[in-house]
This record gives sequence, C-alpha cells and structure tokens, in this order.
Amino acid sequence: MVAALAPLELLERTRRGEPIDPQSVTDFVQAWLDGVIGDPQMAAWCMAVCIRGIDMPATQALTSAMIASGDRLELGKFGPTGDKHSTGGVGDAISLVVAPLSAAIGVKVAKMSGRGLGHTGGTLDKLESIPGMRIDLDMADFVRQLRDVGVVVVGANERLVPADKRLYALRDQTATVQNPSLIASSIMSKKIAGGAHAIVLDVKVGSGAFFEDVDSAREAAKIMVALGAPWGRKVRYILSSMEEPLGTMVGNALEVAGAAEVLRGGGAPDLRDLSIRITGALAEAAGVAPVGEGLAAAGEALESGAALRKAEQWVEAQGGDPAVWTDVSRLPAAPITLTVRAPTDGYVNRLDAREVGEAARWLGAGRLHPAQAVDPAVGIELLAKIGDPVGAGSPVAVVHCRETETGERAVQMMLDALGVSDTPVEPPVLVIEES
Amino acid sequence: MVAALAPLELLERTRRGEPIDPQSVTDFVQAWLDGVIGDPQMAAWCMAVCIRGIDMPATQALTSAMIASGDRLELGKFGPTGDKHSTGGVGDAISLVVAPLSAAIGVKVAKMSGRGLGHTGGTLDKLESIPGMRIDLDMADFVRQLRDVGVVVVGANERLVPADKRLYALRDQTATVQNPSLIASSIMSKKIAGGAHAIVLDVKVGSGAFFEDVDSAREAAKIMVALGAPWGRKVRYILSSMEEPLGTMVGNALEVAGAAEVLRGGGAPDLRDLSIRITGALAEAAGVAPVGEGLAAAGEALESGAALRKAEQWVEAQGGDPAVWTDVSRLPAAPITLTVRAPTDGYVNRLDAREVGEAARWLGAGRLHPAQAVDPAVGIELLAKIGDPVGAGSPVAVVHCRETETGERAVQMMLDALGVSDTPVEPPVLVIEES
Repeated sequence: MVAALAPLELLERTRRGEPIDPQSVTDFVQAWLDGVIGDPQMAAWCMAVCIRGIDMPATQALTSAMIASGDRLELGKFGPTGDKHSTGGVGDAISLVVAPLSAAIGVKVAKMSGRGLGHTGGTLDKLESIPGMRIDLDMADFVRQLRDVGVVVVGANERLVPADKRLYALRDQTATVQNPSLIASSIMSKKIAGGAHAIVLDVKVGSGAFFEDVDSAREAAKIMVALGAPWGRKVRYILSSMEEPLGTMVGNALEVAGAAEVLRGGGAPDLRDLSIRITGALAEAAGVAPVGEGLAAAGEALESGAALRKAEQWVEAQGGDPAVWTDVSRLPAAPITLTVRAPTDGYVNRLDAREVGEAARWLGAGRLHPAQAVDPAVGIELLAKIGDPVGAGSPVAVVHCRETETGERAVQMMLDALGVSDTPVEPPVLVIEES
Repeated sequence: MVAALAPLELLERTRRGEPIDPQSVTDFVQAWLDGVIGDPQMAAWCMAVCIRGIDMPATQALTSAMIASGDRLELGKFGPTGDKHSTGGVGDAISLVVAPLSAAIGVKVAKMSGRGLGHTGGTLDKLESIPGMRIDLDMADFVRQLRDVGVVVVGANERLVPADKRLYALRDQTATVQNPSLIASSIMSKKIAGGAHAIVLDVKVGSGAFFEDVDSAREAAKIMVALGAPWGRKVRYILSSMEEPLGTMVGNALEVAGAAEVLRGGGAPDLRDLSIRITGALAEAAGVAPVGEGLAAAGEALESGAALRKAEQWVEAQGGDPAVWTDVSRLPAAPITLTVRAPTDGYVNRLDAREVGEAARWLGAGRLHPAQAVDPAVGIELLAKIGDPVGAGSPVAVVHCRETETGERAVQMMLDALGVSDTPVEPPVLVIEES
C-alpha cells in the first residue's frame, strides 16, 4: 500500500509524464472540491494532463471523484434503460428521433440534454421550439413519465456531477478542454450519474466536430467504453462524419421538422440512417434486441409508425403540441427566406459543417455566450449536399431569417462554406467506425 | 504585422508547442497583472511552458513584462557596477567574500539578496548574524553607501519586479518552478531591474542544487546571458558543483566565520577558489580588469588585505561590528557541540549537500516556512570533505546546537549524508564550466 501523493507531487509527476496512482487523483480532486487547493492547481494539472496524458486507472479515479461530487440516479427498476450522447454536430437532430424510436422498441430513455454552444446546436433548444414543450420537470414527474411513457428528455440536473460544471468552466478558460481522458471523464461522469445502463456514443469527426481526426475521436470513445464497464454500463460507440451538416436542416424548429420527416418514415437519408444505427446499437446494448437484430427492429418501428406515436406521447406528456410531428406549420417560422444559388455548374465537393453552423449561429439559431436566448425560427435549409450535381444559379440552400440584411450576410457565409467541382464527387462516408 | 494572440489562443499554442510571438506574451502577462485573466490561466500557461518550453524571443518578452511591473534602478553614474547571483547552495558564503573583494578592485556592488528557503541558505540571514548589521537601508542610504564605500547589500526592494514575487509564489504552488526559461526570466528580471551592468551567475549543479544535471543548468545559464544582452548587461556564468557543501561551514554565523578566513587570505580552498573566479569574471565583465587578468587582480586583493579592509568598511557602514572578520568570537555561538565520527576507515566518497543542508535546517539554521526566524548560531562544521582519508572513530564534522537531543538527530542525519569507501576517491571538480 503506497501512500497517496500530496497535490504538489501529483502535479510534478503528471508534469513529467510519470505514472500516478488512482488514489492520488481521487485525493487531488477531493482537495480541490474541498478548497484545500485552488483553481490554479487544478488548471495546471489539467494542462499537464492535456500534454502528457493520464492512464486509464487515473481516468477512472477522476471520473469516480466527479460522480461522487453529487447525486446519482439508479433507473434499473424501470426495466432496460438507454441513453445516447453526441459530441456535438451541426444539423444533429438525432436525439429527437432516437429518444422516441428507442422507447418504441422497449428501451426506456431518461435523457438529460444540453443547450447549444459555439457553432453546434443543443437538443434542449430544439425541443423548446415545440409550442408548450417543458424541459424543467421535477424529479417526481420525470420518474412518472419515464415509467408511463418510456421517454423523457429534460435539462441537466444541477445535483448530478456538480463538479463537472465547475471543472469544465475552468478547462474552457485555460485551453485545457482538448484531451481524450478529460473529455471522456466529463461525458461519462454525467452519463453514469444519469442512471441509464445502455449508452451509445455518437462521436463526431470532421471540420464541424469537437474531434478533427479519427484517431483522437476513437481514443476518447474507447476510454468512454472502458469508463462505463466498472459501473456495469454497456457502452457502444459510433464514429460519424461531420464534414458536412447532418440532414438538411440547421436551426431549432427546422431540425424538429427534419426529425419529423424521419419519424414519418422518410427524411434525409443520413439523418435517418444514423438514427437507426444508434437506436439499433442501443437496443442491443440494453438487451431488448439480440445482437445483429437491433437495426431491423429500429427500422420497423419507423416504418410502422410506432416511433411517431411514441414521439407524440412524449411531447404531449411534457406539455408540448404533439401535432408538430405531422404538421410542421405549427412550429415557429421565420418571416423571410433567401435563396443561396450555386456559383457554377458542377458537383458539390464541400459544405463545411463548421461554417454552416456559424452561419446559422449568425442568424440567431445559436448563441455567442451561455446566457443568450436563441431564435427558434431561423436557420438554414440545405437543398444540396456533398456529391450532388448543381447548375449555375440553381438553389442550393435557403436561409430563414428575420431581417434581409442579416440573411444576406448568411447567404454569403453559405457561399463561402460551399465548394463546387467540375468532376463528380463521392459523398462522405457517414459512419466511419462502429464498436 | 500579426495581431497578438488572445490569452486562450496563447494557451492553445503553448500547449501544442507551437511558436508564440513576443507581443502575445507581453499582452498575456499584462492581462494577468491587470486582472483581466486570473491565476488559473497563468498557472496553466506556466505548466505548458514547463513541458513544451518557449523560445528566446518569448522569454525576452516575459522578462521585459516582469521588469515593467515595477521600478528599475540605473547605477551607471556610479562607475563600473557588478552583481553576482547564485542559484542557491549549501555552505555557499561566496557573496560575503565576492561583494567586498569586487569593491576592493573597483567593481561597485549594489546587491539585493534573499533569505534562505528549503535546505539552502540566504545571504541576508548570514549577514544578520553579524551583531548590529542592518539590511533594511532606505534608498538614500543605499545610494550613498554605494558611492562612498563601493559595496552595499540589502534585502529585496519590494518596488523592483513586484510581479516576480507573485508569479514565483504561483509557480511554487503549482509545481511549475522547474523550467529554464521561467527560472532565467525570474532571476534576470530582478538582476536587470537592480541596475548592475556586469553580472556573474554561479549556477550550481548537483544533489544540493536547484539543477540536478549540467545540461539544464547550462541551458538556464545561456538563456540568462542572452536575456541580459538587449539591456546592455555583460553576463558571464560559472557552472559549479554542489554535490557536497561548499567550504567547511554550514549555518549563518559559521559561514560568516568561513568567509572571514578567506578574506584574511586563508580559508577553505573551494570557497576561496570559487570566490576568486567569480570576482575575476565580474572584474572582466565590468571592464576594471582586462580579459585574462581578473583572476590575478582578485587573488592579489585577498593577499594584500585590501578585500578585508573593504569588508570592514562595508559592515561598519551598515551598522555591523567590523571586527567580526578578524575576531569570529564576536559572532553568536551555540552552547553545545557534538562530534560526528567516521564509522569506518577509508576515504570520504559522499557528503550529500542536500542532506547536510537539511541537517543544518533541522538545527534551526534554515526555515520550514518563509515567516520563520533562523537561529544564527547553529550549524555544522565539516572536518572532512569528499576525497579526504578518515579513520574509524575520527571526527569528520561538528554539530553546533542549542540542545543535545536536537543535535543528536543532526549527528545521525550527518552520518546518513556521509559515505566512506575503501579505496581512494577523487574530490569533485568544483568548476564544471565557465563562459
């Protein structure tokens, strides 16, 4: 039994890239939470971790210490439970499909979602564009809806992993966000505390994503799978492309409309395909479908209308207008639309996800600082995606805006995000890797 | 002209080990001093610098920003001025010899010294063991003494480089002390602000030193030389061994007695030799001796008694008893002496500087925290050094203490610090490298 390291020794060893024992990490995090050491020590440690890395036992210890900072839900008594997490993308309305679709095939989904920040959207902002929808249920309503409807999506519970909010804010201010172990620990501490037993991680790779390369995305994904194991969580991951936006809608109400198309059995092929894959993986991990049969079960629930009915029950249970799924005219709409036109004949070879996300944020679909309100109605509708042929002057996107001047700037941003080549182009491979 | 980086971008680039422009470093330090960014950001940056390093222009910018945080002395009108800096050792009474010796050969020495911390001693603590000696002169007295006596040694001036004190405290708490650029910047900002035009750096290497290997000591030394150049400072360095203590005395009054022996023309050969070398280099750098003749000038001033007379004038000018240099019985003495005896016949092959320093600190010669008082009388006298033959039971050191029990623990620490081999041992090379 080796005595745990004092904070300074832990900092020294981490700085040198030497192994650190898990108990020392536990004590360090606890000392920080107790105020024995301050934010400078934690910031310095996070920087050392970003550069030198930490091993799996240390990452486990960090995750456990974060979980221990607050409450932890136990949802086992409600039957098979599942959750999905996306590392954040543009046009990523997957949760709006996966939540009711999973519930429709027997995986109970109790999901805590976030708001958008930066150029990527957040599920809460999208849900709030549905008239009447409430995302602030109390714990009794949350549990009742999970039991009776099988799907409930709310905002983050402040009592789960309170330390993560503090640590993330510190990392955000000190350029220490980008480390697979720290990212994995932050995500998994919240997922484990959230109580779901099956978890599917949609890890985005590409210009619009948190991870710009496959290797770092895979590394973080593998760490997250390993972090779930000692807690009995079945974790699977999908590495998916975020070179161009997912689906054809970017913006809050627009993405609800895009998800509605998928729930009605149609919709953008990539949005539909990824939703089915994630739900299939979740069904298998949760044990409601045998391995290899998850995809088929998910696909059938879309075809049969079971997912759509579950989506209606879900929204109604949270006070929202269930008719939005079949009548998208009930969603808020922007007063002005401007058309983005292809500059030349050819094939779309670039539709930069980050830049499209920034254009939508410029319109008001996203926020520049956490307290800002978003505009549910504005956004961008994509008429062409990578690989599609276009003619000079033909419409490739529609900007939904409040004011012409603002919209015209977004049109220009869209033209900057767009590339057209003379020769045919293959669309990007959507699913890069699955575990 | 590239715009300076925002603080987060600077942190990002430093974290990745990418080049950072000097203006961005200047702005970052200024933002920290202005409270625009906080200690967590600075701590994270220091950690990134410790691991990734920063280049010379960035180190220059850091140094200039630190200097700009306070006042800067200009001593040019007083003639050739010199200063020496040691990175801290055990038994290192060199400043007590070099200051009057340099003044005796025409280099004016206006020195601001520090107190001991850790296992190494500080010049101020040693000076204060001289009855009556004042180290808190005001600026008018400081300048008058420099002009009239040619040597003055006082405590750090709080108005010079106030940012360094704050940054050093932060680095000390976040395990980000050990980086050659940060160390060099901290030392040189104070030396440049202190106003001396010739500077000799005594960079210690070995178990008792800040730098444990020659390469990192040389790297820091070369950075310090380069940092002085744009400010017109002639900087030379000596890398000297700190495997065993310097001289034969460790403790405050004991080290004054050891320095007195050298000033009287005798003394421990290593203490004498290094004092002459540093003074010679300083004389050459200050232009009072032609290159190649500094050593001889320094040696002659010791032989002739000129250095001793200057030492007497110096101490008298600062209110101290000038007779201590010729009558060490005027210094405080501990009531009890205990003898450390060699365990076996042989040759001393180890006398660990750090461990001897810790034994002296244990006795009260050093401090465990900055506010603690030191005991001027206690310490350790070395009767044998590495390479010396010893017989079983023969005295190898004398512990000067207040209480027998405390002293006996120090005797044991000395025995642990001591190694004796069967076969003859070469003494360590004192001067490893000189610029």
